[in-house]
Amino acid sequence: MIIELKESAQASAADLAKKVKAFHINYQDKAYLITGSALKEVPQDLEAHAANFWVFANDIQLASKKFQQEKRSVNFGNVTIGGQSNQTILIGGPCSVESEEQLRGAAELLVGMGLSTLRGGAYKPRTSPYSFQGMGLEGLQLLAKMRQDYGLNVITEARDATHIEQIIEHTDIIQVGAKAMYDQGILRACAKTQKPVLIKRGFGTTLQEFVQAAEFVLSGGNPNVVLCERGIRTFETGTRFTLDLCGVAWLQEHTNLPIILDPSHAMGYAYGVNPLARACVAMRIDGLLIEAHPNPKVAKSDASQQLDYPAFKQLHADIQKVAHSVGYKIV
Amino acid sequence: MIIELKESAQASAADLAKKVKAFHINYQDKAYLITGSALKEVPQDLEAHAANFWVFANDIQLASKKFQQEKRSVNFGNVTIGGQSNQTILIGGPCSVESEEQLRGAAELLVGMGLSTLRGGAYKPRTSPYSFQGMGLEGLQLLAKMRQDYGLNVITEARDATHIEQIIEHTDIIQVGAKAMYDQGILRACAKTQKPVLIKRGFGTTLQEFVQAAEFVLSGGNPNVVLCERGIRTFETGTRFTLDLCGVAWLQEHTNLPIILDPSHAMGYAYGVNPLARACVAMRIDGLLIEAHPNPKVAKSDASQQLDYPAFKQLHADIQKVAHSVGYKIV
Amino acid sequence: MIIELKESAQASAADLAKKVKAFHINYQDKAYLITGSALKEVPQDLEAHAANFWVFANDIQLASKKFQQEKRSVNFGNVTIGGQSNQTILIGGPCSVESEEQLRGAAELLVGMGLSTLRGGAYKPRTSPYSFQGMGLEGLQLLAKMRQDYGLNVITEARDATHIEQIIEHTDIIQVGAKAMYDQGILRACAKTQKPVLIKRGFGTTLQEFVQAAEFVLSGGNPNVVLCERGIRTFETGTRFTLDLCGVAWLQEHTNLPIILDPSHAMGYAYGVNPLARACVAMRIDGLLIEAHPNPKVAKSDASQQLDYPAFKQLHADIQKVAHSVGYKIV
Amino acid sequence: MIIELKESAQASAADLAKKVKAFHINYQDKAYLITGSALKEVPQDLEAHAANFWVFANDIQLASKKFQQEKRSVNFGNVTIGGQSNQTILIGGPCSVESEEQLRGAAELLVGMGLSTLRGGAYKPRTSPYSFQGMGLEGLQLLAKMRQDYGLNVITEARDATHIEQIIEHTDIIQVGAKAMYDQGILRACAKTQKPVLIKRGFGTTLQEFVQAAEFVLSGGNPNVVLCERGIRTFETGTRFTLDLCGVAWLQEHTNLPIILDPSHAMGYAYGVNPLARACVAMRIDGLLIEAHPNPKVAKSDASQQLDYPAFKQLHADIQKVAHSVGYKIV
Repeated sequence: MIIELKESAQASAADLAKKVKAFHINYQDKAYLITGSALKEVPQDLEAHAANFWVFANDIQLASKKFQQEKRSVNFGNVTIGGQSNQTILIGGPCSVESEEQLRGAAELLVGMGLSTLRGGAYKPRTSPYSFQGMGLEGLQLLAKMRQDYGLNVITEARDATHIEQIIEHTDIIQVGAKAMYDQGILRACAKTQKPVLIKRGFGTTLQEFVQAAEFVLSGGNPNVVLCERGIRTFETGTRFTLDLCGVAWLQEHTNLPIILDPSHAMGYAYGVNPLARACVAMRIDGLLIEAHPNPKVAKSDASQQLDYPAFKQLHADIQKVAHSVGYKIV
Repeated sequence: MIIELKESAQASAADLAKKVKAFHINYQDKAYLITGSALKEVPQDLEAHAANFWVFANDIQLASKKFQQEKRSVNFGNVTIGGQSNQTILIGGPCSVESEEQLRGAAELLVGMGLSTLRGGAYKPRTSPYSFQGMGLEGLQLLAKMRQDYGLNVITEARDATHIEQIIEHTDIIQVGAKAMYDQGILRACAKTQKPVLIKRGFGTTLQEFVQAAEFVLSGGNPNVVLCERGIRTFETGTRFTLDLCGVAWLQEHTNLPIILDPSHAMGYAYGVNPLARACVAMRIDGLLIEAHPNPKVAKSDASQQLDYPAFKQLHADIQKVAHSVGYKIV
Repeated sequence: MIIELKESAQASAADLAKKVKAFHINYQDKAYLITGSALKEVPQDLEAHAANFWVFANDIQLASKKFQQEKRSVNFGNVTIGGQSNQTILIGGPCSVESEEQLRGAAELLVGMGLSTLRGGAYKPRTSPYSFQGMGLEGLQLLAKMRQDYGLNVITEARDATHIEQIIEHTDIIQVGAKAMYDQGILRACAKTQKPVLIKRGFGTTLQEFVQAAEFVLSGGNPNVVLCERGIRTFETGTRFTLDLCGVAWLQEHTNLPIILDPSHAMGYAYGVNPLARACVAMRIDGLLIEAHPNPKVAKSDASQQLDYPAFKQLHADIQKVAHSVGYKIV
Repeated sequence: MIIELKESAQASAADLAKKVKAFHINYQDKAYLITGSALKEVPQDLEAHAANFWVFANDIQLASKKFQQEKRSVNFGNVTIGGQSNQTILIGGPCSVESEEQLRGAAELLVGMGLSTLRGGAYKPRTSPYSFQGMGLEGLQLLAKMRQDYGLNVITEARDATHIEQIIEHTDIIQVGAKAMYDQGILRACAKTQKPVLIKRGFGTTLQEFVQAAEFVLSGGNPNVVLCERGIRTFETGTRFTLDLCGVAWLQEHTNLPIILDPSHAMGYAYGVNPLARACVAMRIDGLLIEAHPNPKVAKSDASQQLDYPAFKQLHADIQKVAHSVGYKIV
């Protein structure tokens, strides 16, 4: 249940929250208390203070269209997605930060195309201890350097809670990876900043659980959450994962969160990234994460799915046309 | 292995096929023998007669781009899809044929929109014996009547092998449903006609097995096969199935078969059909199967996923724009 | 809804069934009408004739423990499973019937071990047209010969509806394979005989749909149905399928049908068949289907999962101990 | 690749490891270097120092039967599992630590049955921020108190890396939960202690990735790793998850790690826990984790799947018989 407090009660909001074991947030100049959805009636202690309230069938509450019909507007650095923007952000860059030269190349590619946001992994959540684990802090610092040199926003992933503060410090958008999506050490840290948080869906995660991960951040006080579908694990092994666009339609219908798609990881093969990116854009999504590498064959991770730069430019050209056909533009 | 016979050997093709336990087909004025893919060298008995041959890694052979790079062109009644046509056919109609009045309404809707092909289920493959099982032969005859009255192509599904001859007789396009996809009684009957066959992917079927089902028809002598992706069964239950567009990208890369998408069954909810249909069209697919009903709430099957007629018209308008953005047109 | 008719109404049962569009069966000397589960109250037309009735939450009705608490007793030839028998039948034999010599060897193995029932595939539901398709009718006739020569029961699979009458004629137990489980041509034919029917769960089939397939046979008049779990398709590819023993616990809790397990197909590798068979038996199941071949390496199908004869004997010895520990015996 | 160093090289093992970018561990009085499995030949720098080496097809190396055929022996406090022990440990206790009274009751139950190890969750990895999140440190301290008062081993779960040091300090066995299984913050901390680590398989995790998670701990220097299968997420929703016993057979065939099963979480319903536990024990597994609660109906988490105490005692009696039938005993 979400309870909007009367203006007169805002000063005592924290105390009231404690009394009814609720979360307390301020959002768009109003104070709210949030309890579990099992509660269906305003507690007696709050009756005098409630200006409004919303009852829910399950624990998708702050993210629900029932609470706020309009899609949330989130600032990705100097770019706005969601809300009424009708913009699809194209975020590019390598799977892993491998060297300054590589990253600088990617940055220049993006700048040359008029794009705003650079991705790159520093702490890589590999499933084997014997694989390349990423450059760590050094990788983060290279990303920060690109921001400084090129005016780009940077986005990178927290692998686990031990370095989440570093991630928050060095990036513009905090990525919570598919394998870290249930990590409350990360989610609770993200709730305490106001930087935008992009949460990737775990490949074994239901839509319900996915949005509930967002609720950890939203109920902790950070309203700037974006969901990212990147493919779920199914019986089909001809492709790396299965991009769940039915799930995207579900999220668009039921939640107020902007949605970014990652067709690179879903497909696992470069040949499918362009057609899938077109499909995503046709659904009026809010962004795309696309892996691009100057020479995919020698990439230290995800070699088969990264686009080379000409293919990335082609994708940009192709999705612009599709975006226009549905009233959106690529930024 | 596929072996193209020399012109001189065409007369004895059947005998040669028997000798090496191969399938024999004629395709585009040439004769071919097809064996299992485990065979990697032309058998001695055929060496003198082979004009050309293709070796394959697995049993996707006649459907493989390695055999024929260009997408097959298939005539859906008076409309051509695949090949160089750059056309996406929009097939509409109710889940189940329920009455002449209902079907006539659907037929008039399609004709009024300039569309060519009417769908409707007569033998319904329900999972419960206590559900509405379809009108059977009477439903087939109503479909045939619509073809006569409105000049529409009709497509309907064979539930099992006991009535496949009825289906072949009364329809223009034979639909092999998701639950019947492994049914060799149906597939072998489809191989003996030249009518186009639309094979739906089973919801627990791998892409490899899916295309191998097409090989049953192709190797039996009918080259007019179209694949239909309609959602696979995954752990996600927020939507009815999961439309596998990664799989569509895989099929487009590896096979020469036209591909039709059925977002209605995949989604299971009318609200998602329009955005998913746009996504499909953006991938340059060859067709869409969309369930539409004059009053979905009272439909005898699939009530939640059928579009009403205004929504169907809106979908038509929306996908036309997307189709144009990728160089295709809706027919 | 199931309605038990008063004795006085039995003569007019067929007419009453037609009036309310219900199935009519006789079972254990009583007459029943069965409608869809959506019906929650006895129709007015039947009120005077109903001796008893059962309302259900879904279309699992005749198979439900709510209708009959006790597990059904089914005669597999001269052996009884289910009911109070506390017996687990061990059914052995090759994946495919390949020759008389091979089948005779299997028959003698079983007879020597005191077992009663021989399995073997004649019509193989292969996923590729280029694989060995089974010996067909000739294979059926070999099975029938073994029955005559050794007094064994035989079980074999119907691939599709075109030869279901042959299967019913030549075998003692009719197997409906995993890929044919939705085939109403087969199910409706099985409903018209009284021979026991073993229905395998499709690898993409929910438990609900699985039991509803049994309802096709039960509501058509054949009470002798046995369910067979043989592994479902999941994201895990280290094994061929995933044997769903949680599902078996569910079936034991909710249905009155005996349950046979097929660990050979689930595992796909001979090394896992013995431990899985022990696991199954510890659950007090009613039977096991185990593939055994004199020389698995040269088998024409399922080479990797068939046990050789010494391993089959070891399995027999091992499961006997486990069976005794749970109060069952192997027959 | 694993390289066993000559005794003469043990002193310089750390330097050699750095030189070839390998992990260095001491195990059973020998020194080993471990590199990625892509390396198939001993590096030149090590040729003079290698006493033995093992090449692997993939990154399952230290856990592989190819490296050590015999199952690892792991001390769970005063109880040994694995190795030649032929023992199956039965670990019981509530899902969540809720109060001292509740936990004391569970401890006394176990002691009264002669069991050794108490489970209970303190940091609960709930998927909703609005659910009961566990008692945290206070819960850990209650568990430690039970250890002191009753001489029981205690096992509890780390939710994320922020409190892993607390877990290591207060428990005898460190549980890495299904949702935390990829958490390198946790895994790397576990590698630095010698306390036994029980890693639960993620519900979307392949067997390959599961064992690779163990490789993080093993290659970091802690040889005491136990795997725990607790059900995977599949399309079947009649049960909470699907217990993957085919996967257990795979792990037993390919790895040297003891295996514990958690049928409570897999099933999700108390009625199935007993039959599944019997099934597990029949496979000669090394342990069972069973949730038990004095009054499941009022449990703060997992209410439907916890056994009450009489049912827990019945389970103990039943699995003892099955264990004996396969040459094992319950401890």
